[in-house]
Amino acid sequence: MSQFERPNIAKMQGYSSGEQPQDGRSIKLNTNENPYPPSPRVAAALKAFASDQLRVYPQPDARALRQAIADHHEISVDSVVITHAGDEALRLAVTTFVAPGGVVASTEPTYSLYPVLAQIQDARMFTLDLHDDWSLPNDFASNVNAAGSQLTCVVNPHAPSGYLNNMPTLQRLAEQLEGVLLVDEAYADFVDVDETSSMAALVTEHENLLVLRTFSKGYSLAGLRLGYLLGDPSLIRPVLEKTRDSYNVDAISQAIGLAAIEDQTYAQKTWACVRRDRKILAAGLTALGFSVAASQTNFVLAQTPKSVSAFQLYQALKDKGILVRYFNTPRLQDALRITVGTPEQNHLLLDQLDQLIGD
Amino acid sequence: MSQFERPNIAKMQGYSSGEQPQDGRSIKLNTNENPYPPSPRVAAALKAFASDQLRVYPQPDARALRQAIADHHEISVDSVVITHAGDEALRLAVTTFVAPGGVVASTEPTYSLYPVLAQIQDARMFTLDLHDDWSLPNDFASNVNAAGSQLTCVVNPHAPSGYLNNMPTLQRLAEQLEGVLLVDEAYADFVDVDETSSMAALVTEHENLLVLRTFSKGYSLAGLRLGYLLGDPSLIRPVLEKTRDSYNVDAISQAIGLAAIEDQTYAQKTWACVRRDRKILAAGLTALGFSVAASQTNFVLAQTPKSVSAFQLYQALKDKGILVRYFNTPRLQDALRITVGTPEQNHLLLDQLDQLIGD
Repeated sequence: MSQFERPNIAKMQGYSSGEQPQDGRSIKLNTNENPYPPSPRVAAALKAFASDQLRVYPQPDARALRQAIADHHEISVDSVVITHAGDEALRLAVTTFVAPGGVVASTEPTYSLYPVLAQIQDARMFTLDLHDDWSLPNDFASNVNAAGSQLTCVVNPHAPSGYLNNMPTLQRLAEQLEGVLLVDEAYADFVDVDETSSMAALVTEHENLLVLRTFSKGYSLAGLRLGYLLGDPSLIRPVLEKTRDSYNVDAISQAIGLAAIEDQTYAQKTWACVRRDRKILAAGLTALGFSVAASQTNFVLAQTPKSVSAFQLYQALKDKGILVRYFNTPRLQDALRITVGTPEQNHLLLDQLDQLIGD
Repeated sequence: MSQFERPNIAKMQGYSSGEQPQDGRSIKLNTNENPYPPSPRVAAALKAFASDQLRVYPQPDARALRQAIADHHEISVDSVVITHAGDEALRLAVTTFVAPGGVVASTEPTYSLYPVLAQIQDARMFTLDLHDDWSLPNDFASNVNAAGSQLTCVVNPHAPSGYLNNMPTLQRLAEQLEGVLLVDEAYADFVDVDETSSMAALVTEHENLLVLRTFSKGYSLAGLRLGYLLGDPSLIRPVLEKTRDSYNVDAISQAIGLAAIEDQTYAQKTWACVRRDRKILAAGLTALGFSVAASQTNFVLAQTPKSVSAFQLYQALKDKGILVRYFNTPRLQDALRITVGTPEQNHLLLDQLDQLIGD
């Protein structure tokens, strides 16, 4: 520890991400990547990008990409700011709306980055336990308001359970909360098409609502680091004009993001495959004795059969070259979070689990 | 203004960058880009990068690039953290070492991003005027200590003057300062080779020293957003493990950064051209009646002849399609900051200035 670190930084733990082996040999079902490659248009955009363009600064506000995203969601460009993946979007929301000593609120469990960002800002994290079925507690808004939350982060569909809150629930929440509500829709692309839960189009109706989206999952671009925030222009403006780094999105990412968002047909095909295989994976896990939460994401949370240790199963799978995610927390320690892979990967996982549980 | 913004954010102004027209028609001598394209190896790395690699998360800590940079500077990999250009390096230094209500120190004038970052952190900016020749005031360290600075940023060579502080001056400063000293070496690549001023190798000797480098200028990669911080592992560790975004450097940038740093021969050729043309540009400006500060960077600060308004000259050049930088501050309002371009661009600029001043 350095004597120069701020005390809140010195005493905190950093964010702990899932393993990211770069060997290409592991079957990675641990960090919710899309199992399909990005659109061929992304490949074409990358090929067409001349390295000489890198000599000069990029468009400071990624204007063309902002406009394409605004068109995609049928909202004004003033309601969009592009970020360096969802992580930067979350950080900027904390930086802009939460004072040191203030409060960030969420649920327990939730995306484990939120408390890390609160600690960096020297803010307090306030959480309320989700119901057993992973739905929001009834008194969530009133408790969060009483705690004085300046920013409340709700990931929907929920991570790590996959549970989907419906739109009226979130609209009511936006109306009730006295601070900013950030709905983290990192996994929204994988929601069944007959569900209408996204709050993206509603940012014009709630002046305290931010919606986060990312290219990492739905557009198979986790390696690129590209995301965005939608919100009322009064919420977006300080992020766009003040708190983000001036050139926060590089020139290649702007070009690739444009190519990806414009190829909806391709992206939607990958989402349809994931939805189909999510059902097959969940059924397979259930048949092996797992208790699987209904998921609207590209992963499932699977509670292990009573006699089986989730941690030992995680380890045994890892030894076989299959990575899944294990969280050592009270609500999650008897479960594995498993990303929906390709049909082959899912099949291999189920096979291995069958053998391991049979042993 | 939104009722939800933090008061310090609401009242501040964002960073104001130089114009970044994307039309490719302007002669851009306003934001200190390298006039030569990046290395052919960068082009090759970009061509070799398969878009399918973007599906998965990048190496979280950009390990291979960190190692290459450590080797380049002959220091330990634990002394290196890769950042999303210099901007992120500066932001992370503020986040990690400056408490809200604390103090960031620098000189007046200096890189205009520093006070913006201090305001975002709700910290106070403390500055001392440089001498007329742009050297540091003699009592800089004692005054900065008395002000309680937690982070002191010194850009060396200095922007926007081009003045170079020598190594003993900065070593003494590191020894005297009670807080962290960040030496921003954004322009260090352009220093005459017979000058040894870089503090990069000295981060092992001063536990309060951070050195910032960027690929934006020296490696012709402003569009990519890639930079790094060097420092004692005790200073680097909290940035690497806690305060930076978990995947702050995307997969393409890691690959391109590696290609760029490994082609020193090419980069050094561009630096030699810039040094040669800096002399020619300065001599040309002097012949036109400008007073030009001795520069060790890829720009010159040129005080206009007495009868000529710097702002009007900036405007007139802009009308002719030549962009230079004008700062409307007391110390700089009678000067233009002009990036060293290609020989053709510099010649064109001098021609236009000759006509404009002659008029």
